[in-house]
This record gives sequence, structure tokens and C-alpha cells, in this order.
Amino acid sequence: MAVRIGKYTIEMKNSPTLKSFAATCGKKESEGPLGDKFDKVFLDTTLGEDSWEKAESRLQTETVNITLKKANMNASDVNYIFAGDLLNQCMSSAFGLRSLDIPFLGQFGACSTMAQSLFLAATSIESGIANYSIAVTSSHYCSSERQFRFPLQYGGQRTPTAQWTVTGSGAILVSQKEPGPKIKYCTIGRITDLGIKDANNMGAAMAPSAAKTLLSFFDDTKTKPSEYDLILTGDLGEVGSDLLKKLLEKENIYLGENYNDCGLMMYHKEEQDVHAGGSGCGCSASILCSYILSKIKNHELKNILFVATGALMSPTSAQQGESIPGVAHLINIIAE
Amino acid sequence: MAVRIGKYTIEMKNSPTLKSFAATCGKKESEGPLGDKFDKVFLDTTLGEDSWEKAESRLQTETVNITLKKANMNASDVNYIFAGDLLNQCMSSAFGLRSLDIPFLGQFGACSTMAQSLFLAATSIESGIANYSIAVTSSHYCSSERQFRFPLQYGGQRTPTAQWTVTGSGAILVSQKEPGPKIKYCTIGRITDLGIKDANNMGAAMAPSAAKTLLSFFDDTKTKPSEYDLILTGDLGEVGSDLLKKLLEKENIYLGENYNDCGLMMYHKEEQDVHAGGSGCGCSASILCSYILSKIKNHELKNILFVATGALMSPTSAQQGESIPGVAHLINIIAE
Repeated sequence: MAVRIGKYTIEMKNSPTLKSFAATCGKKESEGPLGDKFDKVFLDTTLGEDSWEKAESRLQTETVNITLKKANMNASDVNYIFAGDLLNQCMSSAFGLRSLDIPFLGQFGACSTMAQSLFLAATSIESGIANYSIAVTSSHYCSSERQFRFPLQYGGQRTPTAQWTVTGSGAILVSQKEPGPKIKYCTIGRITDLGIKDANNMGAAMAPSAAKTLLSFFDDTKTKPSEYDLILTGDLGEVGSDLLKKLLEKENIYLGENYNDCGLMMYHKEEQDVHAGGSGCGCSASILCSYILSKIKNHELKNILFVATGALMSPTSAQQGESIPGVAHLINIIAE
Repeated sequence: MAVRIGKYTIEMKNSPTLKSFAATCGKKESEGPLGDKFDKVFLDTTLGEDSWEKAESRLQTETVNITLKKANMNASDVNYIFAGDLLNQCMSSAFGLRSLDIPFLGQFGACSTMAQSLFLAATSIESGIANYSIAVTSSHYCSSERQFRFPLQYGGQRTPTAQWTVTGSGAILVSQKEPGPKIKYCTIGRITDLGIKDANNMGAAMAPSAAKTLLSFFDDTKTKPSEYDLILTGDLGEVGSDLLKKLLEKENIYLGENYNDCGLMMYHKEEQDVHAGGSGCGCSASILCSYILSKIKNHELKNILFVATGALMSPTSAQQGESIPGVAHLINIIAE
């Protein structure tokens, strides 16, 4: 049984284990600084499918299959799959996973969905309802652009604060106590909306929610940033991560060298022309499920905070003049 | 700690209790057979807002507030809110609940979302991560028509198999063991797709998933339909519920007088011109959270199966010629 620590944080007592994990990505991501860390790269970003949405579905199918293969398990061994993406009605999750025949629970937290899905997968282990659960998310540059902004063919100009949606997917198989990285603390975020209305400045819209979740976590656990090897937000990008640092400084919390953001890690800033950085629920998922979890597995990292952030907007809300609500969920992952 | 029973079913051992519940609806629903059962009726279906989407958001706000008031509790007492709707990016949930400051976990299971959210809220209690969690969903006829079919102004003709999206919302506050209806067994569904492509025949698309979930449940628990006071699907409507009965008969499972469907219960068939019945994730939610749970609370019903069904399609998938994947989740609710 988990226990509540302070007002917003819980501590998992049965040590849900990240038994196996995998990440896949597209061509542009493979040319970034982490390009050689992913399990599989799709140089043809259609993945052989006839629409971008179907390509994104395939990303999820492939990523889950690699995750299962690494654990030497079959889909029928898995009790629940917690899956989400950015598309309307979580289309890439439903279509990408329908053939697996795993009990399916669709999640929506925009770019925070990987932390949300991982939290629920871990809770399923902690509560005894599952022996094995999978958390998986994806995003695809082309399906996202079409849905949230403009068709690619339109060739719209991007603003300096805009982020580049990552084509990628990450999946984690969570199991009961056994060797491997473990989940200890989790802080689920509250919706925070400071009135940002610019859909091309997601970083600014999400930074306040990341600050709120981190403040709750440090307050609840009586810990401070320097106690963690890595504090990793995703995906605030350049604008949002600067804002986050400033918001925390006002509360006398200082993020130091151990702070990074998935949106800043995915691409080469100068050469790859991605403006404020990467985004999308495949961004933090694919970085967590490759580079980061490998380092924890090898004990190069021992105690990290993964803080995935999401902008809970839709094109309809933007068209109706609404501001952009943000949310951020924190997962503390420790080496065995 | 919950325990697994058979391959797909779990039994909650800490008896998560449905401490408080509420339902709201629009004018048309208030004129149906259950019109006097809802906590609040909005005769102006704009709810005073300037868009249908904002009206639907307000439905969720109001329903959650009534639920909290009935329990004599504040939003700050609630550890998690599991919320979903049919709109792109779960817009009515995010915007309807952003002011409550409750840790937020967005859910998407189309019209099955109430069962999914209730399952996760119960799991949060069972695992010890929460003392109080809320499950809430909504749908709105006008926002759904605009998004999934045609703008209302177009006046499109509806086919005989089409269902009428319910304007309504239902919310449940789940707590640890105390007096009130309790959750015992849950069976989370697998995605089932038999190739139905007609977006105006959701009942046919969802019936196979309801059959699969019910078969798994009866098999896992070694029980039969006659052991339950009520088996309530939502929202198969006329076409889907007939198909469900036929699919189960092939497996020698017979649904009798104790079977009903939320889509058939919401409207007067002849006078209200809703063709195959009601639908939307507000349909099963508002009926469960009014008429049904009141009967369980009063011990008029003692042991029911609530089987919410969802069609995991999106307008984009339909335009791309895809079939409609269905999913159904079962929650067994017992009187104290």
C-alpha cells in the first residue's frame, strides 16, 4: 500500500519496477544529440503507412512490441496498458494498440501523458490489480502540425517561441518488485492557468504548472533540488525552462547543473532549426525510455525527478479565445 | 490490496465506497422517463455560456460541485479527479475543472469513460494513494454534433441507427470503507474491432466489446447473469443491445429481464425522436449517478453490473476509411 506524504505526494511502498523500456523515433530525432540511444529509428517517417495518423499508430505498436521483446514477454502477459497521445480521441493509441488484446485505458494529459500513464501503471502494481502494466505515449510531427496548426503543405512560418513536435514513442513495462529502476515518490499536478493565450508559446503556458508541482513535491518530501542527480522537465523548451527557473527562484528554490529539459535535449539547437526546442508526448517519453532509464539501470543516475508537462489546450479552445491550462506530473525514479 | 480473479477480473478488497454522487442534464433529458431523477436540469442548454464547449465544461463544474456539497466536502479534500469527455483533447474536462485545484488525470474511453474513471478512482482508494477521488464525465448534444457529425445549423438527416448524444454529466466521490454502495469486481475491456465502419451505427461497433467483457467477467467469476439484479450497458441503444444479446446467446449466455441499456432508458422512444437511443459519456454517467446509485443506496438494487461501452473512433479515422474499435469496461457495484 502506498502512503500519502504531505498534501500532494505519495510514496509507493511496493517498489513498482521499470522492468523493460523502449523508445523509437523519426529521422530528425535520430540526427539529434541522442540519435544513437533509441531502440529503433524510422528514416521514412510514414513508417510505410498511408497517413500520418496511421504512421503514429505504428510507432506505438512497434515501441510496445520492442518493450515486450526485451522482457521476453507476450502481450497476453500484460494486465493493463495505459496509453495516450495528442491526437483527437487519442487516435494513435487506440488504433496502434487494438491488435494487442490488452485491457486498454486511454489517457490524456497532453505532453504530460507519459508521467500520468507511468503513475497509473505503477499504481496498478501497487494496488495489486496488476502484475504487469505498460505505459506508452507517442507524438508525430506531421500529425500534430496538421491537427494543431497548419497542414505541412501550407509552409507556415513558425514563431521563435514555437516548439517542434517530436516524432517518437516511449514505452515502459512496470512490474512487481524485481531488479531494475523503481518508482518511489509521485506528485500529480493541478491544472494551472495564468492566462497565456499564445498557442505558439507552450513553454510559457506550462512553466507555472511545473513550478507548482515541484514546489508541492519539495514541500511534501522536505527535500531540495540538490538531493537529486537529475531534475528533468519535459517539454518546456527554452522559453519555458527559463521561466520555470525564475518562478522557482522567487520561492528560493534554485535549479542548478542537475536540471535539464527533454525539449532542450532532443535536437541540436543551431543546426536543426527547431526554435524553442522539442515537444509532444513522444518527446519526454522517448528520452526517458532510452537515454535516462538506461543510465538509471546502469547506476550512472541514482535518483531523478521526471516532471512531464502538458498544455491542455485544443484547437477549438484556442479559436474560442481561451487561455491555455497547463499541468505537470512528477515521478521520482531511483536506481535499485 | 485487490486480487486478480481469473484472467481479466479483479476484486477490490478494501471496498471503495461511492460516498456521494450527482447528475445533471439538459432540457431534452429532463423530458425523458428519468427526468425527475437528476440533481439539476439546465433548461437553457447553453448554461449561460457563449459556446457549446463552454456549456459542457460548466456541466462538469456544476456536477462536481453538487457531488462535493452532498458529501459536505471541499475540493481541497479530494486527492485526485479522473475526468473525461468526448471532445478533442478532453476539452470540457480540462476547462470545466481547472478552477478546482484538484490533481487532475484526464481519461479517454469515449462513451466508456465513466466506467474507466470510476475504476481508476476505486483503484486509487484500494492502493492507498488516495482517501478521496472523484470520477466525472460529460457529453453535450450540440458540442458532439459539431465535432463528430455536422454543425446543427446544417440540419443533417439522421439515419435510423444513429443515437442521440445526451447533454448530461455524472460524478462520483469515491472514499475508503464507510456506509454506501461499494465496488467489488472490475473487468477492464480489450479493444475489439469487427470492422464496422458506419459512424452512425455506434451500437453495432460497440456490441462485440460489451459481449467480450461480459464473457470474460462471467468466466472469471464463475457467475451467471441471473445472479445480478441489473446488468446495465451504456450506451448500445436499440441496435447494439439487440446485437449484444445475440452475441451472448451464441455462447449460451442469456440476458433476461434484468438487462437494460442506458441508451434505451434516457428518452421516450416514440415521442422524443432519438432513433436508436441515447449515447455519449454523459448518458451512462448521468443515469448511473442518479437513478441507479440511488436505488443501490436504498437497497432496492443490491448487486449490479455497470458495463459502459465506448467507440474509440475520431472523425479523422472515419475520414481515412478506418473501422470503429470498441471497448467496454465492467464495474460490479453492490449495496452495503
